[in-house]
Amino acid sequence: MKTQLTPAEALKTVLEAAPVLGAETVAARDGLGRVLAEPLVSTRCLPPAANSAMDGYAVRAADLVYASRANPVELEVRFEVAAGAVVEGEIKAGEAARIFTGAPIPPGADAVVRQEDTEDLGDRVRVGVEVGAGEHVRNAGEDVREGEEVLSPGTLLGPADLGMLASLGRSVVAVHQRPRVAILSSGDELVEPDGDLAGGRIVSSNSYSIAAQCRELGAEPLYLGIARDSPEDLGRYFRAGLHADVLVSTAGVSVGDRDYVRAVLQKLGCTWMFWGVRMKPGFPIAFGRFDADGPIVFGLPGNPVSAMMTFEQFARPALRKMMGHGAWFRPVVEVVLGQRLEKKAGRLHFVRVRLERRGDGIIAHVTGSQGSGVLRSMTRAQGFLIFPAEATELRAGESASVQVLDPAFFDSSEPGF
Amino acid sequence: MKTQLTPAEALKTVLEAAPVLGAETVAARDGLGRVLAEPLVSTRCLPPAANSAMDGYAVRAADLVYASRANPVELEVRFEVAAGAVVEGEIKAGEAARIFTGAPIPPGADAVVRQEDTEDLGDRVRVGVEVGAGEHVRNAGEDVREGEEVLSPGTLLGPADLGMLASLGRSVVAVHQRPRVAILSSGDELVEPDGDLAGGRIVSSNSYSIAAQCRELGAEPLYLGIARDSPEDLGRYFRAGLHADVLVSTAGVSVGDRDYVRAVLQKLGCTWMFWGVRMKPGFPIAFGRFDADGPIVFGLPGNPVSAMMTFEQFARPALRKMMGHGAWFRPVVEVVLGQRLEKKAGRLHFVRVRLERRGDGIIAHVTGSQGSGVLRSMTRAQGFLIFPAEATELRAGESASVQVLDPAFFDSSEPGF
Repeated sequence: MKTQLTPAEALKTVLEAAPVLGAETVAARDGLGRVLAEPLVSTRCLPPAANSAMDGYAVRAADLVYASRANPVELEVRFEVAAGAVVEGEIKAGEAARIFTGAPIPPGADAVVRQEDTEDLGDRVRVGVEVGAGEHVRNAGEDVREGEEVLSPGTLLGPADLGMLASLGRSVVAVHQRPRVAILSSGDELVEPDGDLAGGRIVSSNSYSIAAQCRELGAEPLYLGIARDSPEDLGRYFRAGLHADVLVSTAGVSVGDRDYVRAVLQKLGCTWMFWGVRMKPGFPIAFGRFDADGPIVFGLPGNPVSAMMTFEQFARPALRKMMGHGAWFRPVVEVVLGQRLEKKAGRLHFVRVRLERRGDGIIAHVTGSQGSGVLRSMTRAQGFLIFPAEATELRAGESASVQVLDPAFFDSSEPGF
Repeated sequence: MKTQLTPAEALKTVLEAAPVLGAETVAARDGLGRVLAEPLVSTRCLPPAANSAMDGYAVRAADLVYASRANPVELEVRFEVAAGAVVEGEIKAGEAARIFTGAPIPPGADAVVRQEDTEDLGDRVRVGVEVGAGEHVRNAGEDVREGEEVLSPGTLLGPADLGMLASLGRSVVAVHQRPRVAILSSGDELVEPDGDLAGGRIVSSNSYSIAAQCRELGAEPLYLGIARDSPEDLGRYFRAGLHADVLVSTAGVSVGDRDYVRAVLQKLGCTWMFWGVRMKPGFPIAFGRFDADGPIVFGLPGNPVSAMMTFEQFARPALRKMMGHGAWFRPVVEVVLGQRLEKKAGRLHFVRVRLERRGDGIIAHVTGSQGSGVLRSMTRAQGFLIFPAEATELRAGESASVQVLDPAFFDSSEPGF
């Protein structure tokens, strides 16, 4: 097992081990936000038949050559075509049909005159404009031709895609599966949110923040509960999670006497790939895999900030890959530091920051205490500033990269018009 | 009723009419992505009691003054404190307690020595370092003090906030309600996706794309179905939607003989605020409101692109406001045009574009035919380029503003480290 990896080395190992999940077929309307796992080939034309884009009269363009307000042409109105109706007749020279938006163009007609450009004379209509062939007609296949690939595999399905699926008569669609993530906390001091805090007990908040991190990116969390610090209890809980795609535990992976997580999972068949990444917060993270169809395993540190940070840096990109996404990483923006930062060389620090737009630039402000137990600083963070491993100082006014977490950061307070 | 409004005037009217919805209390774990409707005040300290940040020994710092590897100090190990345990004894001068990460600091001790800096002598321990008072101790209230406002009303709840709620023992939380949006299509030519297309019938895709637009932003769509083009049928369907917060219909709001939507809703009590906005696609949009607790009403055009576009420009910001969000609009970015565009003066055009990052800039490419029936161009669009009302030409290489739709546009292909 490797140790003292750089974050980049650790990430590479994790991404290589994470498989892209197979397809499942879901109801088309449930496809929003999922990644398409098939080429979507149209089995029909859209629109299926030529139809009118306006309320007016279906005509033969040739009949209206040189027609104008001063020299109108009169046509005989043979019948009426409503939207959704089956056309009963045909238009011959000198004839027209009353037509409504969306109604099929009757045989013989090749254009539509808008109602505004006509005068209703009962069984005849007076037309005061010329029209070109095809005017105000939506042709069959204008939007989509039969046999055409409309959406490619890998497409993130959005509202317009769901409208397209409906238009094509598709009630189901093949998308990549969502990873199931079994989540486990361990520690004798942990209780659920409604638990008694006597004896310095604390709430197992990690399972809640990590389950939310899963949901936020579209994975399915399975919360297994709190295991006590004993090999037997840990083994029992871990076995309940082995059928998941990903197993995430928090705490118990350090070097203390009671850190049983690695030994217990190894006994269950986990091959550990690395332990200890040169980053802060989050050094004591372990990553492993089971053979064949078993899960990949993240043994995250127990401190609330370290647990969320290591999930964010390693589990999130892996889960995005598993779901079939193209881009696996958060937006990365260049910022200017609002204050001086210093640290020892050797580990990359992820500094929790708030982001302030100023002119064309972004200023990053540290969110108070950066202790790995201080969840407070995480609730305030809009991003993680990357303080490189070998750097010991970043001066106020210097540039740095920030991973942007806040989904509202890019939103605008103005519509743009 | 006003007509020929600019998009900005129409938007202002819509936003003024849209109320911020009241609060509902949900399970804390269901709060992800919701907007907090109460100040979250802590009823406890976090951590609740001073505890150890390391595995090692709880000591009195004064006992170790001048201790070093060359001149170690020996302390008597009086007892052991495990995480989650109730402390049985007290530490006096010359004494220490074995302690584990997360375990409460026993009375008398004021610091922790890391295991790595000690030698276990059975009932005694040899310590080769000095420690400062408070070292490796997480103090009570270090993260959060009792009575402190931890999260403000208006906070968009993310994973760290859900972890914080758990830490504070909160099982429920007050958030703004999600608007219920009743959606109705009308048209004799419309069928559901599994319907028969004889007679030029087409699938009512608008309800599916609009329902997805609602879900994407966190609102609750209620799909009422397809009303036929008759006042009676429209009346029946609309009545089924009057208890919703927002009523959205597509088609039937133009000036044709069969455009009954406005008359029918007016009869039901709707006051129309405007009809006809100087934009393309989407001119024939109507907006109205009911008195008191009735819904606000969007009568959207029937063309698939016009329906989605008017929803996006007017209904989405209104729904974001109703949900308590701070920023109501999509990200707006400056782009460079990849090709020349022209149009007549008078209406603002929203041009469907794909976005290509090139160096520090973004190039916008038009997504093929911009016909308002061409849903295809919408599936390909990553954003809407704003072609101002009075402009008649935008040259290749010129700058313009784009509203960004694609949630993956800002994502990165690299982690940033």
